[in-house]
Amino acid sequence: MVRIGVIGYGYWGPNLVRNFTECAGATVVAIGDASPERLALAHRRMPSARGAASAAELIRDPEVDAVVIATPVPTHFELAAAALAAGKHVFVEKPLTTNSEQARRLIDLAEKRRLALMTGHVFVYSGAVRKINDLIQANDLGELLYYDSVRINLGLFQKELDVMWDLAVHDLAILDHIWKAAPVAVSATGVKHFSGHAEDIAYLTVFYADNSIAHVHVNWLAPVKIRRTLICGSRKMVVYDDVETAEKVRVYDKGVSIAHSPEAEHQMRVNYRAGDMFAPHLDNAEALRAEAQEFIASIEQGRKPLTDGEAGLRVVSILEAASKSVTMRGGVVELNGDRKAAI
Amino acid sequence: MVRIGVIGYGYWGPNLVRNFTECAGATVVAIGDASPERLALAHRRMPSARGAASAAELIRDPEVDAVVIATPVPTHFELAAAALAAGKHVFVEKPLTTNSEQARRLIDLAEKRRLALMTGHVFVYSGAVRKINDLIQANDLGELLYYDSVRINLGLFQKELDVMWDLAVHDLAILDHIWKAAPVAVSATGVKHFSGHAEDIAYLTVFYADNSIAHVHVNWLAPVKIRRTLICGSRKMVVYDDVETAEKVRVYDKGVSIAHSPEAEHQMRVNYRAGDMFAPHLDNAEALRAEAQEFIASIEQGRKPLTDGEAGLRVVSILEAASKSVTMRGGVVELNGDRKAAI
Amino acid sequence: MVRIGVIGYGYWGPNLVRNFTECAGATVVAIGDASPERLALAHRRMPSARGAASAAELIRDPEVDAVVIATPVPTHFELAAAALAAGKHVFVEKPLTTNSEQARRLIDLAEKRRLALMTGHVFVYSGAVRKINDLIQANDLGELLYYDSVRINLGLFQKELDVMWDLAVHDLAILDHIWKAAPVAVSATGVKHFSGHAEDIAYLTVFYADNSIAHVHVNWLAPVKIRRTLICGSRKMVVYDDVETAEKVRVYDKGVSIAHSPEAEHQMRVNYRAGDMFAPHLDNAEALRAEAQEFIASIEQGRKPLTDGEAGLRVVSILEAASKSVTMRGGVVELNGDRKAAI
Amino acid sequence: MVRIGVIGYGYWGPNLVRNFTECAGATVVAIGDASPERLALAHRRMPSARGAASAAELIRDPEVDAVVIATPVPTHFELAAAALAAGKHVFVEKPLTTNSEQARRLIDLAEKRRLALMTGHVFVYSGAVRKINDLIQANDLGELLYYDSVRINLGLFQKELDVMWDLAVHDLAILDHIWKAAPVAVSATGVKHFSGHAEDIAYLTVFYADNSIAHVHVNWLAPVKIRRTLICGSRKMVVYDDVETAEKVRVYDKGVSIAHSPEAEHQMRVNYRAGDMFAPHLDNAEALRAEAQEFIASIEQGRKPLTDGEAGLRVVSILEAASKSVTMRGGVVELNGDRKAAI
Repeated sequence: MVRIGVIGYGYWGPNLVRNFTECAGATVVAIGDASPERLALAHRRMPSARGAASAAELIRDPEVDAVVIATPVPTHFELAAAALAAGKHVFVEKPLTTNSEQARRLIDLAEKRRLALMTGHVFVYSGAVRKINDLIQANDLGELLYYDSVRINLGLFQKELDVMWDLAVHDLAILDHIWKAAPVAVSATGVKHFSGHAEDIAYLTVFYADNSIAHVHVNWLAPVKIRRTLICGSRKMVVYDDVETAEKVRVYDKGVSIAHSPEAEHQMRVNYRAGDMFAPHLDNAEALRAEAQEFIASIEQGRKPLTDGEAGLRVVSILEAASKSVTMRGGVVELNGDRKAAI
Repeated sequence: MVRIGVIGYGYWGPNLVRNFTECAGATVVAIGDASPERLALAHRRMPSARGAASAAELIRDPEVDAVVIATPVPTHFELAAAALAAGKHVFVEKPLTTNSEQARRLIDLAEKRRLALMTGHVFVYSGAVRKINDLIQANDLGELLYYDSVRINLGLFQKELDVMWDLAVHDLAILDHIWKAAPVAVSATGVKHFSGHAEDIAYLTVFYADNSIAHVHVNWLAPVKIRRTLICGSRKMVVYDDVETAEKVRVYDKGVSIAHSPEAEHQMRVNYRAGDMFAPHLDNAEALRAEAQEFIASIEQGRKPLTDGEAGLRVVSILEAASKSVTMRGGVVELNGDRKAAI
Repeated sequence: MVRIGVIGYGYWGPNLVRNFTECAGATVVAIGDASPERLALAHRRMPSARGAASAAELIRDPEVDAVVIATPVPTHFELAAAALAAGKHVFVEKPLTTNSEQARRLIDLAEKRRLALMTGHVFVYSGAVRKINDLIQANDLGELLYYDSVRINLGLFQKELDVMWDLAVHDLAILDHIWKAAPVAVSATGVKHFSGHAEDIAYLTVFYADNSIAHVHVNWLAPVKIRRTLICGSRKMVVYDDVETAEKVRVYDKGVSIAHSPEAEHQMRVNYRAGDMFAPHLDNAEALRAEAQEFIASIEQGRKPLTDGEAGLRVVSILEAASKSVTMRGGVVELNGDRKAAI
Repeated sequence: MVRIGVIGYGYWGPNLVRNFTECAGATVVAIGDASPERLALAHRRMPSARGAASAAELIRDPEVDAVVIATPVPTHFELAAAALAAGKHVFVEKPLTTNSEQARRLIDLAEKRRLALMTGHVFVYSGAVRKINDLIQANDLGELLYYDSVRINLGLFQKELDVMWDLAVHDLAILDHIWKAAPVAVSATGVKHFSGHAEDIAYLTVFYADNSIAHVHVNWLAPVKIRRTLICGSRKMVVYDDVETAEKVRVYDKGVSIAHSPEAEHQMRVNYRAGDMFAPHLDNAEALRAEAQEFIASIEQGRKPLTDGEAGLRVVSILEAASKSVTMRGGVVELNGDRKAAI
């Protein structure tokens, strides 16, 4: 039985507590939050878990085997490093850290102490992304051509981190898991509409080694909530709409080939197959449950979790490059290391 | 009565012929197309119009007062220049030319000969864009923050020109008409998925002098047809969905202000008004009809049309910069001249 | 070459003229309309067809082999009877006549003179209905349980005939073609909101011999246009949305079985398979073209058309019963004859 | 402080417990359920509430002031009668009872003992229905013409009660609250597809004294979930889509007037205003919270709740008539009493 301590009982923490509680092999023994109100709320809901008024108190608790960190991103590194130094397995919400240097240090710490370090890339565990990954791994889509995602709504503004660190992190985590080629460069544009704050709208292009491309539009200032991703292969194309309650994933049996048009010297007509569309039945289990289970399993089996510290680092590296590109109004930033090995 | 000759009876030409025919003050007297089949089709439908086997023949026809050019883009300049040289008023489909130098020369030619030169920026004449423009000019939206457009489908590939010249041209024409600030720089990314052809997917960011931003996603390889534009103001936000048959324009009475959150040091909560949404009734008249009427009116009144050669030049200048930026994987390109004067 | 004369050049007539013109084996030689304006319009578009100022003139024209009737429903019987009496093949728009007695007389007339009599049940020829019919005939849906259709919009009001004769006729024509069992009784309710006019909203239930049921909601007073049909089988369920531009037909791999719930004495939980959904690719050819072709083929081959006079009679019989039921506020009306033989 | 005892901790009971717990002026002191598992679950979540293994035990508990009944419908009458006899205020989930005779007896019991009797017509308390009611009461819609509702999905089957008692009850409760005229007669059709069970699909028409009409389509066998209501007035029309997450209520500024068409003797063209559509901002508070608050307020103030026993009776009377009409395949059933007084 892995004894879990959760730090941060704000927006996301209660979801983690609930899922680790109902996860076989785990028990939540401690909850930490600096706010007395939230600690009291946690106690009413989970009287069996000890309340810790400080992260340090929870981290040094000898009855805690693993620490789950659901605090604001700028605090991730310090808390995770302290927990690893105290010999605890660590689960950190995404993004792992605020820069790649910190991520690398956490990875090193975990490796030295042979502790699990997991990044909470929760979409990787969703039924929709797992189905899309199955389609890609089975080569049903053919050669991957592009990934295009729109992830916008009227959202929480953050002080230090721009909107990409809040929302594009989901797409970069998904791409890190499903995309075959390695990312090689990034271009991003964005705007700060409110002085003193980070970019609230941004557009991020990732270039891959195989000439494929990924683009993500993230936005805290949109009047409508959109979560729609197009994944285009040479054989089939997927539309993944996470706002839909049914048929989130639609697979279009469409493919194109280029032919010279007899009609016009200057145009080539796309010859496309327009076949059936199908929407596969998805596993509706909560992604967070599967994610919690993976953390516990990695501890029990002494192996790296599916979304480990390296995955967290790779995603942070791209975010870091993107934020740099934004300051150059789209100027390209090469990704020199930290990249996923080409498959 | 303005006597019209139309060059090009392919995909778009028949629509122009039909609309100029039904336009008060105009009559279509000649139709030119290099293809005998298309010329025969034009004759069956419009026996009263002379068929011209070559553009040159139509241009020198003394009974033609004005030439309408609906041929592939690379031929626009030569045909338009010849028609102006022959003393004809000229209407050219968008984009006006393949580069800004050509556009400038057409403008000069038209000015010297005191002839009308119009660019077929058809969306400017649609009920939806006119309504949006009314909202902006009446300052209903407040300060403009961003314009975001997705214009994708499984489309015609072109040999010489990338997908931006085919699809983003619509958004740039709309922006040229409705946006208050002047564009100052461009960053664009894109990919050629088929060797020997132009980019089939592209992302274009336009930076404006007032810190607002426009972004356009254009794509010939999408399994679904999307035509959706978000226009965000500090007071209200618009969603314009051109695929909808009803309520194409929706106005959201939403606005944001930033406040420090008492809950979290690292976050600021958006305080937003979530008021009514309304979808104004739109004029459903065909945009092309209004466009044709504007060309005729500009000739009759000896004035510049609403979407004149300068508008065509400004749009071409941005496309030119965008295509250059794509080769630099997003590297910013400043727009030095040709810009719309700040309002 | 079948020489066609079309009577009625109002809303629907021009579509029939266009499609018979482009139909192999047919030529439109005459167009009749009582309105000089419409006759003039027909002439401008089709100078090769003679204009007839009266139906009688067109019917006695010896160069007309077949008469196509697209006039208001109350005139159908008289015109069709006259045309058959004059030895012409006859195509009549739906509904065939205003009562079943008239329909039977047209059938008798056609049989005696060995002439083709076709009813314009156009939806039977659409790609969507043909695909649904294929699914049913292949027994993919299992046992048919119900058909439910909503066909509403802000529409044309008619003087003599209620909204069912205008809109439910489409569903009854589809049902006549695809449904396996024979209709045995009808119940309908409706309201006349405008004095002196027929019902503008109506609800029609058809009971079938095999315990299946069909229901149609038709309405001229709806603020939105809906054309959505559910077809439920014991194995699969279909949603056919004719307003959609893509994926009009969606097939849900869902089925139910009833099991006693261990949880509650008074409830049984539906055990349902929730499998994939798929949207088959449809033939996008115009239904009207296939319909015109069927009329010509039936004449050339001396056989009955797919939607013959009997089909027209069966649909009219149900409409007749439904209008009678409306006056009894839903009182059931048995269908005694004219029914489709059980398959 | 009103001390609440909740009987039934199955599907809906936990929602009632949660809302009465968070409701000012109320405290949940006892929860009853015959299932030991559910009682244990209730205890884990609400250790402060006593668990009662039988309804009788809870009803005779002197510390319970008011009993909330969330058990299967056939048990409602007996439990409510016992609770009223024991001097408790009573809240009963909808439908109030399985027949109007029982409903009348509960009303009499409550009146004699001067106790509150409330029916859980929850939709009446939703932001959407309250907004629609405001529009109607302010006469914004004009004269009411029809109400049309589709309420379908793959649902729970019930043994004794047909689908109308499960789903149409919501629409009848809404109509009882918002409609101006009194219902005078009912016609309903439906089918039992599974032997030994009640109707799983039904269509219900309610005729009102002012020539308006209401129709409800309810269905446990639909592949898609639809909750869409049209409310048509002579001035404006409402579409209320409860599946939408945003803009549930849309108001169309459309109205019709009938004019004789110059074009056709047999048709009259609808002259309709096609004005703006607007979607008013709705109060997103949980309807169940407002409902709970109303029960408490009615007890505290010694007045009848908004949805009292009479409202429950009126709805049950229509359901009773509808079930009778179904056995006559749509034969009309007059509503003789129990009707809402015309306004």
